[in-house]
Amino acid sequence: MSRFDKIEPNALFKALESATPADTLPSTGKLLDVVRFNEDGLLPAIAQQYDTGEVLMMAWMNREALEETLTTQRVCYYSRSRQKLWRKGETSGQQQQLKTAALDCDGDTLLLKVDQTGPACHTGRRSCFYISLDAHKALISSVPLIDPEALYGKK
Amino acid sequence: MSRFDKIEPNALFKALESATPADTLPSTGKLLDVVRFNEDGLLPAIAQQYDTGEVLMMAWMNREALEETLTTQRVCYYSRSRQKLWRKGETSGQQQQLKTAALDCDGDTLLLKVDQTGPACHTGRRSCFYISLDAHKALISSVPLIDPEALYGKK
Repeated sequence: MSRFDKIEPNALFKALESATPADTLPSTGKLLDVVRFNEDGLLPAIAQQYDTGEVLMMAWMNREALEETLTTQRVCYYSRSRQKLWRKGETSGQQQQLKTAALDCDGDTLLLKVDQTGPACHTGRRSCFYISLDAHKALISSVPLIDPEALYGKK
Repeated sequence: MSRFDKIEPNALFKALESATPADTLPSTGKLLDVVRFNEDGLLPAIAQQYDTGEVLMMAWMNREALEETLTTQRVCYYSRSRQKLWRKGETSGQQQQLKTAALDCDGDTLLLKVDQTGPACHTGRRSCFYISLDAHKALISSVPLIDPEALYGKK
């Protein structure tokens, strides 16, 4: 039992704002009941390499993907284009091993610390964030680690 | 001029996958014309502390917010609840100074490296990601740096 178990579902994240590391929190299952998935049932999930801190990618999870990720420790997203679960690395081999997962203050975004095998990006780059912008100009900031055609078995 | 200027708008991010740091890219203005804002005209923007690598928060930007951020180097989001531009720190004083900005491979997410003054989170914590989850249990992983009532002038 947790002192937060009696809180109305729509007030739970507000109540957790004043919680401390000493508090017993509701179970993960109860938290997932009130997580603020968007109108498509999805949460944005940021993947960060756990030891270097590099932000690798952002993708989406439905409840099933998040539960599978927490259970198996292998990151599974929901592919909006393919409309199905997407076990990261199932085609490319470039898996993400989950280290830690955290929800944000209002329960609508996830931060995953992961151990990424090779490139996270389908272009073969380590990170998806490679188009640097300033007020006027843009620049490609990284190069592929691996030819993407090799990643997806075309070579 | 850039060799990418002749590419059809909906094929530009695909064409940039094979671009290199030596390429001259379309201007920021031209890229923003094809950035994949969602149906509400918004992009998710991840804020990361530039030197420590800590992921601080995720919020949303419309084109105006992104242009202002790139021009002023002070991070401006779009508040979905207030439906207006939200110059981070305008109430709390906890500003974000932009260091670098990057789009991801498919042009629908931003990574901002920032220098955050004090806490990024409205709860007074440094980062918004403080509700750690495993398959069964949840735990609060950080405490406020500042009493949130002090941040918002109630004390």
